[in-house]
Amino acid sequence: MHNLRLILEYDGTDFQGWQQQPDQRTVQGEFQKRLERLYGTPLRVIASGRTDAGVHALGQVVNFTAPHTMPLDRLHQALNGMLPPDIAVGFIDEVAPEFHARFNARRRFYQYHISYQKHPIGRQYAWYMRRQLDMNTLQQAAKYLIGCKDFTSFCVAAYEKENRICEIFSCQWETKQHGLVFHIEGNRFLRAMVRSIVGTMVEMARGVRPATDMPRILEVQNRQAAGESAPPHGLFLEKVIYDEGLPGG
Amino acid sequence: MHNLRLILEYDGTDFQGWQQQPDQRTVQGEFQKRLERLYGTPLRVIASGRTDAGVHALGQVVNFTAPHTMPLDRLHQALNGMLPPDIAVGFIDEVAPEFHARFNARRRFYQYHISYQKHPIGRQYAWYMRRQLDMNTLQQAAKYLIGCKDFTSFCVAAYEKENRICEIFSCQWETKQHGLVFHIEGNRFLRAMVRSIVGTMVEMARGVRPATDMPRILEVQNRQAAGESAPPHGLFLEKVIYDEGLPGG
Repeated sequence: MHNLRLILEYDGTDFQGWQQQPDQRTVQGEFQKRLERLYGTPLRVIASGRTDAGVHALGQVVNFTAPHTMPLDRLHQALNGMLPPDIAVGFIDEVAPEFHARFNARRRFYQYHISYQKHPIGRQYAWYMRRQLDMNTLQQAAKYLIGCKDFTSFCVAAYEKENRICEIFSCQWETKQHGLVFHIEGNRFLRAMVRSIVGTMVEMARGVRPATDMPRILEVQNRQAAGESAPPHGLFLEKVIYDEGLPGG
Repeated sequence: MHNLRLILEYDGTDFQGWQQQPDQRTVQGEFQKRLERLYGTPLRVIASGRTDAGVHALGQVVNFTAPHTMPLDRLHQALNGMLPPDIAVGFIDEVAPEFHARFNARRRFYQYHISYQKHPIGRQYAWYMRRQLDMNTLQQAAKYLIGCKDFTSFCVAAYEKENRICEIFSCQWETKQHGLVFHIEGNRFLRAMVRSIVGTMVEMARGVRPATDMPRILEVQNRQAAGESAPPHGLFLEKVIYDEGLPGG
């Protein structure tokens, strides 16, 4: 029995998110199916977190218990050969038996991409909007999110009933050629949280509401107080950090 | 009557190439349909050249005769709003009545992208191969293509029966992170020519045949002498240059 950890990259476009569901194409479903074929036995893969339908991952971290030994480079090649073109394994290592990709994750990093130009090439990976956003408003709104806060207002209703407190270590907007990237780093994220944060900040930057609304939105703990969710195709799970750092260095 | 010139970007993935065909989704078909709706009259769009099914364009140049006046920025916005997400207009100007996007094009630039890593994000835009290619062989093979040559051996049979002489001004391979890009600049290109050139060079770099075969392949003027065509999704029409330079500077 070996506890193996893997970094996965996937294009979320054609997936109904991470979590396995009957009759749906999901990343977990497609990945487990290949692993089970390879090992000839049912297996269960644990991810650092579930990504929603349409959300991409550059560095999702997962683990599973391998029933028998296989050289890691052979496993790596075999999996990439078997997996569909929209999922790839970037790295594999063997970890302590108690390692758990979700429970042991310390910091999760997300990116959200916005494009101001209509670019057919790569349109699957950014939210296109014609009018430019006010950068000062965006940065101001982002600052209110840092620290330990209750994110109920940015959480899909009826989900995660218990603890909705997340610690945001850092978040900022970066100017890119013809667009923007929002970077956010936290200990955990609730369902659709980054997308509803981005959607709310975009409304502020468009002047629909002031950036100074942010503390009040957090305080009322009500999803109705926040703005609409940004579309999933601009969002990337960038990387996940554990006690000992980033898997693979 | 105004002769308008436009630069188009498109993602070739879901098109059966540039040229309009009944019951097929083509770039020309989708583009003309929008223009005709906008002007309320049948129109014909001329491109610098036809791109094959699956081939992308960053800077395809087209022209058409507009039956009535419309401010160019309004036309630009209207078209981008009407066009599907996989076609965009990047630039428009009015040109002399005799300008013809194909006949007046002086230099056409293509890029071919190869990736050595399985990357789900952006996999639509590069040919993925696991084993690295010998760069010296690739560069050596490319050098034989420069100058005025008959490219019958790199042309789809039964197509373009007449003049198959093209002048290649420059071509070279560039090393990129986790892959390569082939750049080629010529006065004209035959159908599937860049893809069969790339496919043949890849066979050489894999040791299937020596790079020194290139002069003989050109000389025999027979498609059977060359290698298989590289897949279309790695190929981009980058830009087209006219007597007065690149449209839009």
